[in-house]
Amino acid sequence: MTRRPVVKINLDASGEPRRGPDTLAAEEPLEIRVRKAPLAVTMRTPGQDIDLAMGFLLTEGVIGDAGDVVTAQLCAGTDTPNTYNVVDVVLGADVPPPVTDPSRNFYTTSSCGVCGKASIDAVRTRSRFDISGDPLRVPATTLADLPDRLRAAQHTFDRTGGLHAAGLFTADGELLVLREDVGRHNAVDKVIGWALREGRLPLTGHLLLVSGRASFELTQKAWMAGIPLLAAVSAPSTLAADLAEEAGMTLVGFLRGRGMNVYTAPERVTVRDAHIGLPESASTVS
Amino acid sequence: MTRRPVVKINLDASGEPRRGPDTLAAEEPLEIRVRKAPLAVTMRTPGQDIDLAMGFLLTEGVIGDAGDVVTAQLCAGTDTPNTYNVVDVVLGADVPPPVTDPSRNFYTTSSCGVCGKASIDAVRTRSRFDISGDPLRVPATTLADLPDRLRAAQHTFDRTGGLHAAGLFTADGELLVLREDVGRHNAVDKVIGWALREGRLPLTGHLLLVSGRASFELTQKAWMAGIPLLAAVSAPSTLAADLAEEAGMTLVGFLRGRGMNVYTAPERVTVRDAHIGLPESASTVS
Repeated sequence: MTRRPVVKINLDASGEPRRGPDTLAAEEPLEIRVRKAPLAVTMRTPGQDIDLAMGFLLTEGVIGDAGDVVTAQLCAGTDTPNTYNVVDVVLGADVPPPVTDPSRNFYTTSSCGVCGKASIDAVRTRSRFDISGDPLRVPATTLADLPDRLRAAQHTFDRTGGLHAAGLFTADGELLVLREDVGRHNAVDKVIGWALREGRLPLTGHLLLVSGRASFELTQKAWMAGIPLLAAVSAPSTLAADLAEEAGMTLVGFLRGRGMNVYTAPERVTVRDAHIGLPESASTVS
Repeated sequence: MTRRPVVKINLDASGEPRRGPDTLAAEEPLEIRVRKAPLAVTMRTPGQDIDLAMGFLLTEGVIGDAGDVVTAQLCAGTDTPNTYNVVDVVLGADVPPPVTDPSRNFYTTSSCGVCGKASIDAVRTRSRFDISGDPLRVPATTLADLPDRLRAAQHTFDRTGGLHAAGLFTADGELLVLREDVGRHNAVDKVIGWALREGRLPLTGHLLLVSGRASFELTQKAWMAGIPLLAAVSAPSTLAADLAEEAGMTLVGFLRGRGMNVYTAPERVTVRDAHIGLPESASTVS
């Protein structure tokens, strides 16, 4: 976080511009290098950078577990100041090098060119974890409490109003880890990188809450980490719902107030101890 | 948009799960090809795909104006269905090919490795437009009305609760074009691609409003299109404010209700016909 001068205008009050400091969320580029070669640059909030790099490599399918990484370290690109924005990763000798073709996610498993179905096929091929049979069951009342718990924990850190949050919870609603970042995908990568480093993958029986929307990308990351339930405060996209359905992942959207929408695998959410999806599951609704 | 089955739970009401259809925002990959080679894949909401590709190429510095593009067309990657997710761009013979090194944004102009300052230097080098002297003046009352105007126009299109919006306005607060997308950067690229195709660049005297936060990336895109004022409903990041200051761009954040924060170049915002930044500008506040 950084303090900057700002002019604040409130037209309802005196309307007189007030000058003062404001606190902004820090954003800096991070370069992830594998075997000294740049693989990706992401704009992120500095902190937990090793976790970010590890989570990114796992959710992109470059590594399968922590054992694939020999070393991962923050390094200075040159000898000038402010260069601790590079994570250099050394992979084991038997780990295939990452593919850097920008179309890599889409052509590997399908002949249909670039399309949603090919994207889903590519993730299915790469995911090491089958979450469709995960026995997680969560009461809707527990789910409804999670956004407040995330925000309460977030409040400690975020004074900027400008950070996305991702939280990993147990089935009882206990918050295990919270990460905040200017980028939603970075917050999720930091959470998953933490779990990878802690030896907790696959994250069977856990659930992930994100502060914004549920995109294809976030759903992919959850699947790659073996998370059976992804909840979002805002809306999912079509491709996120399609991917969750393919994975057998429970996708919850619009989790706010005392309400929620369950888009896929609703049998994991219970209301008054009854599985809402059974015997009539959402997927059978016309 | 696509309709999908959903289970809706409202714990404040009967608590009885209701099953029904829900409308989700469409998300599909789009591959941008230059000279038949894949340059980038972005997850976007289908529609205005040529504008998206043109805006992306301009804001990334691959092209300088519409004349650099010979043809840009949606094409089917193969003969199977659902493959209209590729835009193939043919550049003029004298246009240098795009650099595809992932670190391209950061190493070109600086020896300090990957850092925020190098990122800013790279954008300054690539931007063709000097916006620091843009004479745009906008009353704060006009700015305060923009989010409602954007939402009113958005309401027509967005029934999903899941789309980001970007709107280009005149200094009088007239909405010229609105674009919505699951990705904020795509919404902005579609706006700028539209303006490029309409021969309106540089966008002197215009302002851009985005529905979410102001990141480095969005600020870069605004500068590359010559837009002198970027307003965001939510918070900016440190690097967005730093880049705006470097550009001489007015950056407005937290534009909601009747209030706003002006982070850089406040002299373009007037309150009761007075420039709020003069004689004491925000940049001189300690």
